[in-house]
Amino acid sequence: MPSTSDPASSAAGNAGVTIAQIAALAGVSAATVSKVVNGHVEVAAETRALVERLLREQGYRRQKRVSRSSLVEVLFHELAGTYPVEVVKGVERVVTEHGLTISLSELHGQHIPDRSWIDGLLARRPVGVVAVFSGPTPAQYQQLSSRDIPVVLVDPTGEPAHGMPSVGADNWSGGLAATRHLLELGHRRIAVITGATGMLSGRARLDGYRAAMDAAGVPVDPELVREGRFQIVDGLEHTRELLRLPDPPTAVVTGNDGEALGVYQAVYEAGLRIPDDLSVVGFDDLPPAQWMIPALTTIRQPLGEMAATAAGMVIDLAQGRELPQRRLVLSTELVVRASTAAPGR
Amino acid sequence: MPSTSDPASSAAGNAGVTIAQIAALAGVSAATVSKVVNGHVEVAAETRALVERLLREQGYRRQKRVSRSSLVEVLFHELAGTYPVEVVKGVERVVTEHGLTISLSELHGQHIPDRSWIDGLLARRPVGVVAVFSGPTPAQYQQLSSRDIPVVLVDPTGEPAHGMPSVGADNWSGGLAATRHLLELGHRRIAVITGATGMLSGRARLDGYRAAMDAAGVPVDPELVREGRFQIVDGLEHTRELLRLPDPPTAVVTGNDGEALGVYQAVYEAGLRIPDDLSVVGFDDLPPAQWMIPALTTIRQPLGEMAATAAGMVIDLAQGRELPQRRLVLSTELVVRASTAAPGR
Repeated sequence: MPSTSDPASSAAGNAGVTIAQIAALAGVSAATVSKVVNGHVEVAAETRALVERLLREQGYRRQKRVSRSSLVEVLFHELAGTYPVEVVKGVERVVTEHGLTISLSELHGQHIPDRSWIDGLLARRPVGVVAVFSGPTPAQYQQLSSRDIPVVLVDPTGEPAHGMPSVGADNWSGGLAATRHLLELGHRRIAVITGATGMLSGRARLDGYRAAMDAAGVPVDPELVREGRFQIVDGLEHTRELLRLPDPPTAVVTGNDGEALGVYQAVYEAGLRIPDDLSVVGFDDLPPAQWMIPALTTIRQPLGEMAATAAGMVIDLAQGRELPQRRLVLSTELVVRASTAAPGR
Repeated sequence: MPSTSDPASSAAGNAGVTIAQIAALAGVSAATVSKVVNGHVEVAAETRALVERLLREQGYRRQKRVSRSSLVEVLFHELAGTYPVEVVKGVERVVTEHGLTISLSELHGQHIPDRSWIDGLLARRPVGVVAVFSGPTPAQYQQLSSRDIPVVLVDPTGEPAHGMPSVGADNWSGGLAATRHLLELGHRRIAVITGATGMLSGRARLDGYRAAMDAAGVPVDPELVREGRFQIVDGLEHTRELLRLPDPPTAVVTGNDGEALGVYQAVYEAGLRIPDDLSVVGFDDLPPAQWMIPALTTIRQPLGEMAATAAGMVIDLAQGRELPQRRLVLSTELVVRASTAAPGR
């Protein structure tokens, strides 16, 4: 159930427009507008849509802090692997310091929340939202902003529109560092299995690969560029094909540690060895990477730190503080382990 | 912030004792007792302890449903590996069907919550709690029960006291099946690296191992029984020692998949091979098990199903329904993959 509604909600908003004025424009009662503002669901869909549009167009904002729950919502596009665990640990560290608690929701593989999530969120009244590899549409963002529910994106999937605050990793530099490491070992036939290139992070890592190859004067063979979606099976299937090429690669850069796990599987199936027959570089450095056999050379992105930073930004925004920086990019780092070596050993 | 307090909270509880009567016994005002009941923290510690004791001793219970949040709290002893992800997915499936949301907290390796967690929980007023590999003390459980906050344990750590409802796995049968599989392959020198034997699940798995060995008339060599704590490093360190024995084992049963990962590492370090030189059986069948090289033979415990079942029990209890069964044990299953074979191939 939602918390009690804010008695001050009919007072003038920041932009001067009142609930009464919105009600007059919409031709409904102030009580109805108040219900929409407070996230009650018993308003007819059409009326609700009309009121939402007017609130947005008229730039309605609550004047006073609303009564909030003690929750910081963490929104995941998908719960899989150890990635969500690292994120939750990072957020948990910060919210606990502030006497707050995590609420958690999942979009089951989608990157954009649906209406029911927004409705639930408005009823829960969290302090704010940390959206991981997902994020609201600009209209949804505006809807949440008008209720003073800040949203910060972690690992943003697209160019953050409408100035949504975000915390990302330096993916381009990571792709560059992974590829440069292999070039320095003497590799020239370097394949890349990308992450989802429709996502910013996947595209930036691929561009980093291309930049390193160009800088070294090594032409990119289109046959060695394979598109994945950050899944183990992508690493498996593309590597099976790559190993069957007349001139197979001697090294492969992957979109994440999960894809690298799939590469290991394909190499094992083919009766070959890492790094003797194929060098492999991952991306993420999640805890399992060090336990892969051989231990995975990978690009560390500071996921826990990114999540903690985003949680801190959410709390700052909820407390009315300006953010010194609205888009933060944390650096990535090459971690050399045992899955890379000179070619043709 | 807590929801509004229940105006009916001064009415007679189930056991007939009222807030006014508790106040008289404690020599404090009814308002003070009400504050304690509603989880407000601004009551002096001594007074609070006295009131808590009286509420417990007098069997105080709210008569009416309190105003609740829409949260089901999931309490973890630790956030590590993919175990929490499987649990959250199971709970999420059930709570979403009921229009509820997960709130999440972690005990940072402890198995018993502290006072601050209880305080926060009383303020959050969740529908109930799914406590994973952790659980309240009997006094804490009583404190939550008196506020109509049901608790269901998943993978209980000890004999559930005071009839706390729980969902576990058939750990003993799992330990038995793992060991019997190795015996049937012809192994006799079978080591066991246990989970934390202070925990019910760890102890039951070890007892299953012993039962299988006894039934096969194979004496248990005490040197082959090693105590772990469910950590990767336990598998690593104990296997290093086991492989150095004059008469090393040909197979090992582990307390969980994480320990099995450590066994793989030790076998790799020693320049040996799985299953040729050592057969390995895990426990859990978390998603990474199938991607280990070679793929791990393990005992599947239906973690997601256990968590979903517990969430359903919490919701039933919150809605005032009796549970047909207060302690459920879901079955485990041997999953044969590539890490086990006949000895001495």
